[in-house]
Amino acid sequence: MTNLAILSGAGALPVALSQHHTNAVCVAFNGVDHSHQSPVLDHRFEQLGVLFDDLRTRDVTEVVLAGSMSRPPLDPSVFDATTAALAPRIMVALQGGDDGLLGLVIAIFEEQGFVVRGAHDLLPELTAEAGLLAGSEPTKRELADAEFATDILMALSPLDVGQGAVAASGLCLGIETLQGTDALLEFVAQTPDHLRRAKGGVLVKTPKRGQDLRVDMPAIGPETIRRAATAGLSGIVIAAGKVVVLDRPALMAAVEESGLFLLARDL
Amino acid sequence: MTNLAILSGAGALPVALSQHHTNAVCVAFNGVDHSHQSPVLDHRFEQLGVLFDDLRTRDVTEVVLAGSMSRPPLDPSVFDATTAALAPRIMVALQGGDDGLLGLVIAIFEEQGFVVRGAHDLLPELTAEAGLLAGSEPTKRELADAEFATDILMALSPLDVGQGAVAASGLCLGIETLQGTDALLEFVAQTPDHLRRAKGGVLVKTPKRGQDLRVDMPAIGPETIRRAATAGLSGIVIAAGKVVVLDRPALMAAVEESGLFLLARDL
Repeated sequence: MTNLAILSGAGALPVALSQHHTNAVCVAFNGVDHSHQSPVLDHRFEQLGVLFDDLRTRDVTEVVLAGSMSRPPLDPSVFDATTAALAPRIMVALQGGDDGLLGLVIAIFEEQGFVVRGAHDLLPELTAEAGLLAGSEPTKRELADAEFATDILMALSPLDVGQGAVAASGLCLGIETLQGTDALLEFVAQTPDHLRRAKGGVLVKTPKRGQDLRVDMPAIGPETIRRAATAGLSGIVIAAGKVVVLDRPALMAAVEESGLFLLARDL
Repeated sequence: MTNLAILSGAGALPVALSQHHTNAVCVAFNGVDHSHQSPVLDHRFEQLGVLFDDLRTRDVTEVVLAGSMSRPPLDPSVFDATTAALAPRIMVALQGGDDGLLGLVIAIFEEQGFVVRGAHDLLPELTAEAGLLAGSEPTKRELADAEFATDILMALSPLDVGQGAVAASGLCLGIETLQGTDALLEFVAQTPDHLRRAKGGVLVKTPKRGQDLRVDMPAIGPETIRRAATAGLSGIVIAAGKVVVLDRPALMAAVEESGLFLLARDL
């Protein structure tokens, strides 16, 4: 059995991972502990050399990035030699989108000899197989809206933008940007009625085409369902095997309560 | 001199047109008068035959669609024969995006023998020639953000989505959907600081690629500037010759006051 470190960001994903991999060590960065599990190793992005040494001392050979990490202000005055040497590459990546930055993070850990695993791979039951998970079969109109929202996301994919979009009756009601799905659904909820052709609409969540699933997997949870219902949507379509379904019992309860459908498709 | 009818929707555009074409008749639809000018002919979408006859009686040969029209609920019980005959085509177009619907409106007027003009063509000074209109020259970073936002809009263009997008320091902060530019900027303004890499950011407004400029031209006005400033942006880039600049004196005053730059580019 190999030793795993969970590099923990915000959200339910690091919690789920640490519950299923009880021998794993959790790493919290810059004083923010999202793991709700001990032992937690506190580290700083400014001192990656210290982190790598600590992981090696604990015979960690595999790491997994889990949960969303905001881009904290870095304090160059406390950079250790390792971070200082990596700084030019980090600075370049910071100018681009999330994919580039997280791709660099993976590359750095791999260069240090760690195997970088994906959360979906360590915990396959986190994602959903293709099929109707809850609610009634979507209508032709709803499937067409799901198709339209998917087309939007695929068009944006090469630009490293968009893991979610909402379409209703052939109109696009919103496209997810860096603020995330909750903010998107809140925005959609505020759409004046006279701009909407009819009630309903579909949220599609899917990774970008060719996205490395070891970082930044899209996720839905009970809160996503509740917000989708508040936004007047009639259903949610997720990419089978590629979207994390968090807190499934509570999520399924929320789906049943809201009357939405939840469909996993091969996207 | 030909006789012009201004088919008036919401916004400042029908007002500007009627001020410059004082002989034109204004048409208001379904009881909503946006023209602020007399004479106004009240018509209903349900009775297009009555409209066409009225325009011909007044020797109207040209029409211009100006301002945004929401999709009002139609009352089939009052359809006249002309609208009833057109209903199947209208119903199909209502399922699609704005471009398709407005394209049909143009086709219908042309079939009735009217010339459909564009507002930009009747009032060329409504748009801006390429060049810096106000503020200081944008930085390399700001130009790169404008490029990124433009790439996003061009990628979405074939899907009939998006006339505006905001990028800041290489990240996309928002993409305009049917709620319009004001809603987009309000959304951007609510972005938590920790998600933004730095202050600033650029709004790009451009028509969709290949869009018929006789309908649904993108527009900016003084309120756009104020909302962009509130959203923390540093500038606005518009497509030269293809974006309506409403109420220019007030807009230029707002630009100067906000410290934003306003640049028209050949997009």
